[in-house]
Amino acid sequence: MTDANIMKKNAGYYAAELVEDGMIVGLGTGSTVFFAMEKLSSMINGGLDIVGVPTSYQAMRRAREYGIPLGTLDDYPTLDLAIDGADQIDPKLRMIKGRGAAQTMEKCVCDAADSFIVVSDPSKLSDRLDAVVPVEVIPFACSTMMETVRKLGGVPVVREGVKKDGPVITDSGNFEIDCSFGIIKDPESLESRLNNIPGVLSCGLFTQYSSKTRVVIGKKNDVEVILLGD
Amino acid sequence: MTDANIMKKNAGYYAAELVEDGMIVGLGTGSTVFFAMEKLSSMINGGLDIVGVPTSYQAMRRAREYGIPLGTLDDYPTLDLAIDGADQIDPKLRMIKGRGAAQTMEKCVCDAADSFIVVSDPSKLSDRLDAVVPVEVIPFACSTMMETVRKLGGVPVVREGVKKDGPVITDSGNFEIDCSFGIIKDPESLESRLNNIPGVLSCGLFTQYSSKTRVVIGKKNDVEVILLGD
Amino acid sequence: MTDANIMKKNAGYYAAELVEDGMIVGLGTGSTVFFAMEKLSSMINGGLDIVGVPTSYQAMRRAREYGIPLGTLDDYPTLDLAIDGADQIDPKLRMIKGRGAAQTMEKCVCDAADSFIVVSDPSKLSDRLDAVVPVEVIPFACSTMMETVRKLGGVPVVREGVKKDGPVITDSGNFEIDCSFGIIKDPESLESRLNNIPGVLSCGLFTQYSSKTRVVIGKKNDVEVILLGD
Amino acid sequence: MTDANIMKKNAGYYAAELVEDGMIVGLGTGSTVFFAMEKLSSMINGGLDIVGVPTSYQAMRRAREYGIPLGTLDDYPTLDLAIDGADQIDPKLRMIKGRGAAQTMEKCVCDAADSFIVVSDPSKLSDRLDAVVPVEVIPFACSTMMETVRKLGGVPVVREGVKKDGPVITDSGNFEIDCSFGIIKDPESLESRLNNIPGVLSCGLFTQYSSKTRVVIGKKNDVEVILLGD
Repeated sequence: MTDANIMKKNAGYYAAELVEDGMIVGLGTGSTVFFAMEKLSSMINGGLDIVGVPTSYQAMRRAREYGIPLGTLDDYPTLDLAIDGADQIDPKLRMIKGRGAAQTMEKCVCDAADSFIVVSDPSKLSDRLDAVVPVEVIPFACSTMMETVRKLGGVPVVREGVKKDGPVITDSGNFEIDCSFGIIKDPESLESRLNNIPGVLSCGLFTQYSSKTRVVIGKKNDVEVILLGD
Repeated sequence: MTDANIMKKNAGYYAAELVEDGMIVGLGTGSTVFFAMEKLSSMINGGLDIVGVPTSYQAMRRAREYGIPLGTLDDYPTLDLAIDGADQIDPKLRMIKGRGAAQTMEKCVCDAADSFIVVSDPSKLSDRLDAVVPVEVIPFACSTMMETVRKLGGVPVVREGVKKDGPVITDSGNFEIDCSFGIIKDPESLESRLNNIPGVLSCGLFTQYSSKTRVVIGKKNDVEVILLGD
Repeated sequence: MTDANIMKKNAGYYAAELVEDGMIVGLGTGSTVFFAMEKLSSMINGGLDIVGVPTSYQAMRRAREYGIPLGTLDDYPTLDLAIDGADQIDPKLRMIKGRGAAQTMEKCVCDAADSFIVVSDPSKLSDRLDAVVPVEVIPFACSTMMETVRKLGGVPVVREGVKKDGPVITDSGNFEIDCSFGIIKDPESLESRLNNIPGVLSCGLFTQYSSKTRVVIGKKNDVEVILLGD
Repeated sequence: MTDANIMKKNAGYYAAELVEDGMIVGLGTGSTVFFAMEKLSSMINGGLDIVGVPTSYQAMRRAREYGIPLGTLDDYPTLDLAIDGADQIDPKLRMIKGRGAAQTMEKCVCDAADSFIVVSDPSKLSDRLDAVVPVEVIPFACSTMMETVRKLGGVPVVREGVKKDGPVITDSGNFEIDCSFGIIKDPESLESRLNNIPGVLSCGLFTQYSSKTRVVIGKKNDVEVILLGD
């Protein structure tokens, strides 16, 4: 196993061990979360009784392979815990997500959870938010939304597919526009501004969940857990 | 023709006559806009050269029947004029839209237009905004979004179909949730708050376009035009 | 309760009583199936252990209200039983479905079930199939598909919404085109022909499931059960 | 320019030169078609008056960049010509398409066209059809459809995204399942059988259009044109 995977595994396993019997658990998208699912799977085999709420087709399909019982936000509008990854995390535990094009449902699940566990590796920590912000938009509004992003000082690029011709399509049938803003000085304001652009479903900025967030940074031999105020 | 239709026709025809040769024109959804299209159709037969940008499948299909050349926001990210209806209009020309479940694309088109012409009848004018606010949400987030609306003091109801079983589905594949808030004291704030609920694509509050709005109220024998500051 | 509802209730309750402990049960869309769910709900309260697989947003939402545990075709690619309604049934137990715009997922569930229970009232029985055939098509192909239907001798009409402006949109985001063919002489052939029109997702003809079908006709005081060969 | 691109360019340019003034032209998806668009663009600059009907978001976006006036199948239910690529072509000019996940709309456009021009390179010609057959299916039916494909002797694999986590999503919001059948002995029958699986929107087999097909094989210095009966 590569060092990167060892770190991911350490983070994922640690997160899984935070899950207690009877919990409803949001299941994020991406490779680090897979390690959490792997661990949850063995805990379930050992008697743990939980229900997972997946954030994407990928999470749903993987969780099913791992034998994790599944429900939806309609079944469980409140979750005890959500486990997910992130693309970039700043010292105030504000985040950018969406590299996997799943940030809309991930935000729904995060929002519904009492506690948000972010599994990550050290490379995702940053003094400031300056990564690309993915924005999900209906195809109808793609050009006008990009124009508005430019007026906000951003550089928008339509994410192109690799195994399909043309734009990446999200699980909800929309485009994903990767927007570069350089250093984002006021992430809260930008998040709200992007969400208010007509035709936008969500953006990858997560600024409202810091107080319920624990960041689990996988290292080679252990993990570091970061809470707001640390 | 009923009195109601005469008023709609007067408003629609007046709006159409605001359209000048060479303009790119947003075409809203609903019965009053049809009268505007009818008039535009005869103006096009008389030589008017315009392109319409429809806000819904309905508008697109109807405009095609009327022989109006069509384009998209990708072809024309800026429009000269948009013509649309409204469910309720307050003295500050803030509006509620969405009874036809088309408010998302209507807002995209309104946002892209230099001038917004609202065709209406006297019954839509109100001292305050207290009509139901339609909110378009992805099916995944329906329950959690409704819970958040309740926390905001609203009463959300899933709009049910008549010619289909189950919820009305929008042209973008989502649910339309009709939310009653009583008298809405701060529509600007509510609009932004609703747009920021995870999974929400748009709400029916239009508070940001007053300065470019002209409301055309059809009456039995003429029209009344309302501008901000009148 | 009206006579019509009494008949529906009798059919629905009879169907529910065919469900045995441990079964995976497809749950159709429409009012007669609701009575089956109502009965299943009380059986579940009495200890019955089943999982329902809903065929639409409506079925899912209603089943959840009734406390029926839910799964998907991904969880259970084979079902023991599916309970659903029909618009018209001929003596060979071929059917037309889709008045509720849910025939695509209903067909998926029917196809996956070992046994298909159709709950109905006497008015749905017919010597021949001559009802409107709903066809679900992607919006892109609407006009060309309608042209092909006309070449097949049909009269296609786009189903219009009531609580939304413009076409009814299905749970999968498509249009529903109601096609009249008069008396359908060769339903098997027409079903396959319609399914092969580019852009068509499904049609409302169900001709391949007669051998596993039981039709439960609700009457005022009892039910009549029809099997192929009766 | 690489040899592969020279061949593609030769094929694309040749196809473009088949387009005559006043034609309505279907525009396929993929890199060879781009060369046809490039040539059409310069012909349009030289005075050619045509309308293009794109088969995907990609084709639409690219055609717009090239300044090709665009319409839809609703505007033009009959096309004079469609230009597209293919993954594999057999001596009877039956084809497999869908590597770009756009085969559904490509088939709609091909079906609507009087003449079908396939631009390709020599590597796509094959004595028999044995390439992977992409099948577009609604997510709800993914597992059951794959089970049916297995019963038909195929090996289905869900196509996974690269720039998004989880399955590739098509422009219509569905999954693309790549199905291997080995040598396909009866492509006509398999095409119809796949199209009749509940939940399937389309498959990549194109067996019904040979008589109106011209295959343009780009070579290093010229092209070879293949018609049925050659």
